[in-house]
Amino acid sequence: MTHPTTGLDNVVHQRVRLGILTVLRQVARADFGYLRDHLGLTDGNLSRNLAVLEESGYVTIEKTFEGKRPRTWVKITRAGARALGEEIDALRRLLSEMDGEQASARSS
Amino acid sequence: MTHPTTGLDNVVHQRVRLGILTVLRQVARADFGYLRDHLGLTDGNLSRNLAVLEESGYVTIEKTFEGKRPRTWVKITRAGARALGEEIDALRRLLSEMDGEQASARSS
Repeated sequence: MTHPTTGLDNVVHQRVRLGILTVLRQVARADFGYLRDHLGLTDGNLSRNLAVLEESGYVTIEKTFEGKRPRTWVKITRAGARALGEEIDALRRLLSEMDGEQASARSS
Repeated sequence: MTHPTTGLDNVVHQRVRLGILTVLRQVARADFGYLRDHLGLTDGNLSRNLAVLEESGYVTIEKTFEGKRPRTWVKITRAGARALGEEIDALRRLLSEMDGEQASARSS
């Protein structure tokens, strides 16, 4: 049995990107400012990580205007949702193995 | 309430280092070869990540000889165990918030 961390995909596991994908999983789409503020990021940090996710096919980014105001909308793709699901499964496995260890440490 | 990913410490969250710390949490000490093989890493990758953990005070590294054979022993420190505990708590919070969302999505 391989260690649960060996299956983690760094594109999804990285702290900021994990945050972006978990937020996007809840909503049809989110705008740039919402993601930035909700996750406590700078514009630059959010941009860089969105670019990594877009390049992997995990999000789509659409730039629009509302009147004269530019708006950037971000959506998770089906591949992104699948990759996030695999990450979540690996994390659950990691946590449940740790729970198992503690239980056996207590009983010994 | 801040998003659970905002509290993650990249020193501990990074895939390889999370693997190293979770293995070290189970044992009094582990040798270099065991960590490398158990986590499926190269010597270089393991060395680099151990250096990051040592610099943060999360592991200690001791080089010894058994006869003429060099051996490198790695131990988690109290600070490392505490940092791993905080990571685990943040991951549990992330997973339980996701479970909550799915439950409310089903009931709506």
